Amino acid sequence: MVNVGIIGAGRIGRVHVESICTQVGNAKVKTLADPFMSEDTAVWAKEMGVENTTKDYKDILNDPQIDAVLICSSTDTHSPISVEAIEAGKHVFCEKPIDHDVQKIQEVVDALKKSDVKYQVGFNRRFDHNFEAIRDAVAAGKIGETQIIKVTSRDPEPPSADYVKVSGGMFLDMTIHDFDMVRFLAGCDAEEVYVEAAVLVDPAIGEAGDVDTAVITLKMKNGSIAVIDNSRKAVYGYDQRAEVFGSKGMVVTANDSASSAVISNADGVTGEKPLYFFLERYMAAYAKEIKCFIDAIEKNTDTPLGVMDGLEPVLMGLAAKKSLEEHRPVKISEITV
Amino acid sequence: MVNVGIIGAGRIGRVHVESICTQVGNAKVKTLADPFMSEDTAVWAKEMGVENTTKDYKDILNDPQIDAVLICSSTDTHSPISVEAIEAGKHVFCEKPIDHDVQKIQEVVDALKKSDVKYQVGFNRRFDHNFEAIRDAVAAGKIGETQIIKVTSRDPEPPSADYVKVSGGMFLDMTIHDFDMVRFLAGCDAEEVYVEAAVLVDPAIGEAGDVDTAVITLKMKNGSIAVIDNSRKAVYGYDQRAEVFGSKGMVVTANDSASSAVISNADGVTGEKPLYFFLERYMAAYAKEIKCFIDAIEKNTDTPLGVMDGLEPVLMGLAAKKSLEEHRPVKISEITV
Amino acid sequence: MVNVGIIGAGRIGRVHVESICTQVGNAKVKTLADPFMSEDTAVWAKEMGVENTTKDYKDILNDPQIDAVLICSSTDTHSPISVEAIEAGKHVFCEKPIDHDVQKIQEVVDALKKSDVKYQVGFNRRFDHNFEAIRDAVAAGKIGETQIIKVTSRDPEPPSADYVKVSGGMFLDMTIHDFDMVRFLAGCDAEEVYVEAAVLVDPAIGEAGDVDTAVITLKMKNGSIAVIDNSRKAVYGYDQRAEVFGSKGMVVTANDSASSAVISNADGVTGEKPLYFFLERYMAAYAKEIKCFIDAIEKNTDTPLGVMDGLEPVLMGLAAKKSLEEHRPVKISEITV
Amino acid sequence: MVNVGIIGAGRIGRVHVESICTQVGNAKVKTLADPFMSEDTAVWAKEMGVENTTKDYKDILNDPQIDAVLICSSTDTHSPISVEAIEAGKHVFCEKPIDHDVQKIQEVVDALKKSDVKYQVGFNRRFDHNFEAIRDAVAAGKIGETQIIKVTSRDPEPPSADYVKVSGGMFLDMTIHDFDMVRFLAGCDAEEVYVEAAVLVDPAIGEAGDVDTAVITLKMKNGSIAVIDNSRKAVYGYDQRAEVFGSKGMVVTANDSASSAVISNADGVTGEKPLYFFLERYMAAYAKEIKCFIDAIEKNTDTPLGVMDGLEPVLMGLAAKKSLEEHRPVKISEITV
Repeated sequence: MVNVGIIGAGRIGRVHVESICTQVGNAKVKTLADPFMSEDTAVWAKEMGVENTTKDYKDILNDPQIDAVLICSSTDTHSPISVEAIEAGKHVFCEKPIDHDVQKIQEVVDALKKSDVKYQVGFNRRFDHNFEAIRDAVAAGKIGETQIIKVTSRDPEPPSADYVKVSGGMFLDMTIHDFDMVRFLAGCDAEEVYVEAAVLVDPAIGEAGDVDTAVITLKMKNGSIAVIDNSRKAVYGYDQRAEVFGSKGMVVTANDSASSAVISNADGVTGEKPLYFFLERYMAAYAKEIKCFIDAIEKNTDTPLGVMDGLEPVLMGLAAKKSLEEHRPVKISEITV
Repeated sequence: MVNVGIIGAGRIGRVHVESICTQVGNAKVKTLADPFMSEDTAVWAKEMGVENTTKDYKDILNDPQIDAVLICSSTDTHSPISVEAIEAGKHVFCEKPIDHDVQKIQEVVDALKKSDVKYQVGFNRRFDHNFEAIRDAVAAGKIGETQIIKVTSRDPEPPSADYVKVSGGMFLDMTIHDFDMVRFLAGCDAEEVYVEAAVLVDPAIGEAGDVDTAVITLKMKNGSIAVIDNSRKAVYGYDQRAEVFGSKGMVVTANDSASSAVISNADGVTGEKPLYFFLERYMAAYAKEIKCFIDAIEKNTDTPLGVMDGLEPVLMGLAAKKSLEEHRPVKISEITV
Repeated sequence: MVNVGIIGAGRIGRVHVESICTQVGNAKVKTLADPFMSEDTAVWAKEMGVENTTKDYKDILNDPQIDAVLICSSTDTHSPISVEAIEAGKHVFCEKPIDHDVQKIQEVVDALKKSDVKYQVGFNRRFDHNFEAIRDAVAAGKIGETQIIKVTSRDPEPPSADYVKVSGGMFLDMTIHDFDMVRFLAGCDAEEVYVEAAVLVDPAIGEAGDVDTAVITLKMKNGSIAVIDNSRKAVYGYDQRAEVFGSKGMVVTANDSASSAVISNADGVTGEKPLYFFLERYMAAYAKEIKCFIDAIEKNTDTPLGVMDGLEPVLMGLAAKKSLEEHRPVKISEITV
Repeated sequence: MVNVGIIGAGRIGRVHVESICTQVGNAKVKTLADPFMSEDTAVWAKEMGVENTTKDYKDILNDPQIDAVLICSSTDTHSPISVEAIEAGKHVFCEKPIDHDVQKIQEVVDALKKSDVKYQVGFNRRFDHNFEAIRDAVAAGKIGETQIIKVTSRDPEPPSADYVKVSGGMFLDMTIHDFDMVRFLAGCDAEEVYVEAAVLVDPAIGEAGDVDTAVITLKMKNGSIAVIDNSRKAVYGYDQRAEVFGSKGMVVTANDSASSAVISNADGVTGEKPLYFFLERYMAAYAKEIKCFIDAIEKNTDTPLGVMDGLEPVLMGLAAKKSLEEHRPVKISEITV
């Protein structure tokens, strides 16, 4: 039984509390910490089976009975708390991104070099049943040599302009998941990025200095070509698909919907929309990623996504930003610490 | 918080233990009873959060702290334990079928008349997301007046001849779920049944006095016509589909599969098989039916499926047996207590 | 080059003129006959490349240069003209049904015994790409031993009550195609029929003495069970599907639509309706059946559908009528000439 | 009735002969010309209903009874024969591309300025039922403002290296159809092109100086972003799909296959591959484009695709070549005559 402390009781922190309490048999949440811990949240946590709640995350780092921490606090705290937790000898699961600043991620890398704790980054989509199936097909050689990878990723609603301003920009906030997906499906890193992007959804996003629509082409190290298309607003819901094409065939995934019911009437043949957003689509994936993290601790194996898997998508995102600014293809190697 | 006792620690009893312990926030399993309770099962139950285990189900009926019982023991005990539990003032969730003998079900009906406990029968498929969606579409008037109902229900593997002998026959063992589905989709009872059946899967089933393949036509009280097709063995897995056709359109559901991944290669375009069997397909439905039962207790409302919903499919199954024996359409009203 | 005479310039006669003139390279239409031949039709026929038009079909039977006739006149004339044409030494393609009266079909059978001309009945659906594919899969053993056959056949619009009165009833007018399809898919004849039917679409059809909705169960000679569901009105268009289930798997066909375009929006994910009716759905099948008839003449092989293939579905239709009237399963062998 | 002369009796010339002779009621092929006209082809043409065959295409240009010519000869002759035919007062349908050299296309543009004949370019895919449906949905405003356009275009087999050497390169030979499709779907021209390409299918194509795999991003004049992915070899057949995403939704098309039959067995759920190649997929589209050309002549309206629709995709192809060579985004305006 792995004792876990969770830092951050926001939306994603609560998702992990729920997953561990109901679906991860070999872990328990000993402490949930949040500087703004409310009475309601504390009551809810107790009912879920969390032993303690606190406003100070250091209570977790100082608790010798706690084996592992989940860092679900605000993005700017991910890397410093990672370092602190590593130094306190805790295994760390850190929500994405580790940081927008490569230097800060490097500090986590350095801390890990001096330690033997486990570290996992929260790219939950790798644990989705559809993306796992597509990756498994590729890994099993069912499509031969990978030649073209296509990832579609569109949100149902754009964020507010206020959020956009502090988000690090679409590439580091939203596309970062797709950069990880491309690496996952290709089984290798990217070499070069080219961005074509625009503000087509909401002018306020443009005024906040960001884009909301993009097609991003990537040259991968294994010679294949990847392309991501993003939109901040798909009226039909969260659109999360991928296609991998190779020398022996193609594998494609569709979106999930609430049911398979299809109505035929005088207007056409109509099925359900995709599940609305990430909480609906990826709930099982969130539970599975934590299960894998806990299992890696119990069995003393590698986590499925290490710190370098946290670093690469940030490099890709920074290269994408540079490509947009300089209107040219940018090599990942141009992004230096 | 509703305190629950579960009678029977077989496959389905354990499914309910797990559902309640992990997904039903307003209930807890106080006691699990099974005459053959093993050490392993007792340990597993404790780990899941069950307070006590026992070999004597009367420990549950006699426990004043227990509000509700789930009867998951062998079929022949469903009706007598139902009566006992009702008389002990416990709310009852009873696995299907209540009994194969209409007189025995009548005893449960009589017991309920003298009591005000809740009673729910375990027709789990009504809680499946696909069947709920099709029923919702019908109830919302999206297909107009219902005219034709089609239910396909095929198992991936036939039962052993030994099981067949004590099963009550395919109509009471397997088709009973489909009889319930037809009532659920039609929103009314059946009037008459006609069976065309054969032994095409396994001669041993025929030797045991049963059939393994059937097409069953039903005249419904609302004037619509329903048809069920059954097979004890579909090599591609558990096949559970329905179609409702009416004056304004049609609604259809497909099977669920493990992922939406589709591979195109030189052999064709191939997706995944349906989920293997009922535990895979209906896990979420099992949890939902128990959640509804507990909610009905907490809110003091009717359960979604009362004792009459347990009786009608048995009448339909007995009429189907008679139709097969006498090779003619049989009215439900011919089946008397 | 096979010289063809076409008797009847109604809808289906014109379909065959067009097919032969544009898609059947080894035949030409020498004469088109119709007692009500209009000026417009004659002009149209000339433009299509038909050599002569006439009001008297005997001009065709008496023309020594004509090798084959297509009988597309009203149903009551099918059998007498068949006999006349056979006696005149012409190969005959006859639209379905040959007759509603078994005795009249027997006269055609008898005439054929004394002749060596080719005879083909117009069950066009066997030549549809989807039904051919499903039959090919069955014939190739891909689903093993056939166990359950399901045919859905629904028209987009009901006929007028006036038409219904002279149609011979739904089973001989509409279901007859499905009876043929069941024989085609099963690869054998039916043994027994049971009908559950109702008037749910239009009371005028009931007043005309017919039904408009039916589920028909058939016991096939190879032991499999078939079920047909019919409606005279599907608001979403012509619904023509089949499913064959067997010991090694299942093969299913869907409807055709005008395009594969699917729109996802705030209301759902919507594709096109099925093609409207038989002219839209089966145009290529009509051409193919005539091509096969002409090829059988040229190569002196059997036609794909002989006179017995015209007789059996009529027997099935008469048995279905009797089943409805007497409310019991009826053996095909009960229907005598 | 429009009299047509067809120049070139190769594969595509013969397709047009067949279309006109069987499906275009208001045109007839008076003469088919080919410098290598064989006896077999001449016989075939006569049987199809072609009046004359000749080795000299000038027989067509000099025939005062011929209204229109179809130029189906080798690519290098398209522009000079176009000019000759225009000057001879013939309406011209010219296979794509008009030329690889913009200057040569300009000569056709100039010739047309001095004439009032109709001119149509052979981008057949615009007449495909699926692409028409997607364009119709966009034009009807069903997806709102267009934001992202995706075109997938993969051939089943790569061309020989010999062909590649004279083909003008993949962008002018294969992608040119996709450039046209992007313009068709966007309803506007492209502004800028960026190419990421590789040799992943056949090294001989690389040795011939070309690429066989590409992802091409385009900035469109209406602000939307388009992306084309190409491969010279998809083992599952001809892959021709498109997706248009906008402010109100998305419209997508799938490939066509020979039938809708789907087999479920122990290996999965398998449907048919896409139709093999362009002759299978686009036969109806070829007939429709010619029908539209003939109708434009008869009704004296604009052809659906004028000479500028022939020029723009060549500019896009040349910009793509430049982008590949210079590894940067290239504006269409950089390509000058």
